[in-house]
Amino acid sequence: MLTFVQVLDFIGTFAFAISGIRLASAKQFDWFGAYVVGLATAIGGGTIRDVLLDVTPGWMTDPIYLICTGLALFWVIAFGKYLIHMHNTFFLFDSIGLALFTVVGVGKSIALGYPFWVAIIMGSITGAAGGVLRDVFINEIPLIFRKEIYAMACVVGGLAYWICDLFGLEAFICQIIGGSTVFLARILAVKYSICLPILKGEQR
Amino acid sequence: MLTFVQVLDFIGTFAFAISGIRLASAKQFDWFGAYVVGLATAIGGGTIRDVLLDVTPGWMTDPIYLICTGLALFWVIAFGKYLIHMHNTFFLFDSIGLALFTVVGVGKSIALGYPFWVAIIMGSITGAAGGVLRDVFINEIPLIFRKEIYAMACVVGGLAYWICDLFGLEAFICQIIGGSTVFLARILAVKYSICLPILKGEQR
Amino acid sequence: MLTFVQVLDFIGTFAFAISGIRLASAKQFDWFGAYVVGLATAIGGGTIRDVLLDVTPGWMTDPIYLICTGLALFWVIAFGKYLIHMHNTFFLFDSIGLALFTVVGVGKSIALGYPFWVAIIMGSITGAAGGVLRDVFINEIPLIFRKEIYAMACVVGGLAYWICDLFGLEAFICQIIGGSTVFLARILAVKYSICLPILKGEQR
Repeated sequence: MLTFVQVLDFIGTFAFAISGIRLASAKQFDWFGAYVVGLATAIGGGTIRDVLLDVTPGWMTDPIYLICTGLALFWVIAFGKYLIHMHNTFFLFDSIGLALFTVVGVGKSIALGYPFWVAIIMGSITGAAGGVLRDVFINEIPLIFRKEIYAMACVVGGLAYWICDLFGLEAFICQIIGGSTVFLARILAVKYSICLPILKGEQR
Repeated sequence: MLTFVQVLDFIGTFAFAISGIRLASAKQFDWFGAYVVGLATAIGGGTIRDVLLDVTPGWMTDPIYLICTGLALFWVIAFGKYLIHMHNTFFLFDSIGLALFTVVGVGKSIALGYPFWVAIIMGSITGAAGGVLRDVFINEIPLIFRKEIYAMACVVGGLAYWICDLFGLEAFICQIIGGSTVFLARILAVKYSICLPILKGEQR
Repeated sequence: MLTFVQVLDFIGTFAFAISGIRLASAKQFDWFGAYVVGLATAIGGGTIRDVLLDVTPGWMTDPIYLICTGLALFWVIAFGKYLIHMHNTFFLFDSIGLALFTVVGVGKSIALGYPFWVAIIMGSITGAAGGVLRDVFINEIPLIFRKEIYAMACVVGGLAYWICDLFGLEAFICQIIGGSTVFLARILAVKYSICLPILKGEQR
């Protein structure tokens, strides 16, 4: 039987893969290229985290992520032209994925005995590095470095997780609060167009 | 004494390095930059595979790959202007490298106890990820995402390897058939201009 | 109490982070993006080295690199417009960082039992790969592949380290001479505009 977390994981993976596949389609990638970019978006963050933590990347132990990315590719091939009308749905799914992936990354690092400041970085890498890899593959400047609160939502959620832990709350509660914080930070930032200042250095 | 596989490995490494060095030369890289791009093309796939499999990258145990890339750089410096007439030879060498690297990647993963679906991905990474790294370094969209059957040949060859294994054939036979399938798939795809459909999503 | 090496490490990290943050600011990155690019420039080389050597990346054991990058970001935000007048200072700091990081990379590899040719590559990766990562993130062709002696200074310093070791000198002396060689090679190359030949292949 599927657990609630597995359902969220599936939704998040699907949404991340869709985001990669859509950007690949805008660059005229073939089906294979789109699949790889979708996969990198979905599992790239977790893979970089697991390489840094020196554990076996999650997708190498369960083919669900490959299958889920395959379904996302099929979805874009079959329903691509309707996707634009589902913008809000996918924004929601993507935010769910961001929240879950962050919490999974923080939790995994804590379980391996790393301090919280490492865990928050690992949570942010899990949530946001897949999108960086996607943008490198399609040869664009990573979106998350220039626009919108995205990885910052992971950092804020990770901090919320930490604070809950400092107050002695149970791991389960910490995860719920941490994940909700990521989700809300992301939603509110987009709704109210909250963004970080642009860095202005010397003129060039 | 050199084994047959070592000769193939040398040919493949040389061809991959040449491909990286030539593209670097088109972008006005200096000798050092061209060497690094050639090396990344030749050993990048195997290195990413070995990092994911958590074993020491092959090139760190034997300097032959560095030497081979050095010879490739010397070759391009000395005979660069004749290279264009040797297009067919290098296409052949490149296909030999692709076939061998795929089989080595699949075999290594199986030997480490991974299931076949992981091994096929590792074989494809071994064969094709070096070219992706090359294209990231020269700041182009990875060629294999947009044109020609390349990594798909690795996947098809990996599947052939798997099927042979399911029929209980010896590892050696599986490798010969798997590698030949990669080689033929690549040659036929180019000869008959077989390619995957381009993904068309929504208009932008 | 801070040791002399720690002071050099801090100076080098700060200079590397500044270099990443300045290039990010020229591309209109936000504060978060600039921080990530600065961090990648400062710790990227060491992280890639440690992943290849299969040890825990240094920055995951000590938050000093994160703090140092934060100070660099603050510095650029507060004093950005004066930075251009401090060009020579930062060139000096950057060269100190390059020298120290190379020596640390060589020493760490030797201590893990790798042969010197691997150690020299690891030293060069430690010194120069962060800058490659920076340039990939800002979507430019890596500077070190096209201009100036940079990674070559690491290679030359690594060779000097090796030669000292062959003569049976103490590790400490090897490190001083290796580091000084990197530093001088870099300074002299810029002062006298020494660079490697550009690779010219076939016309395209």
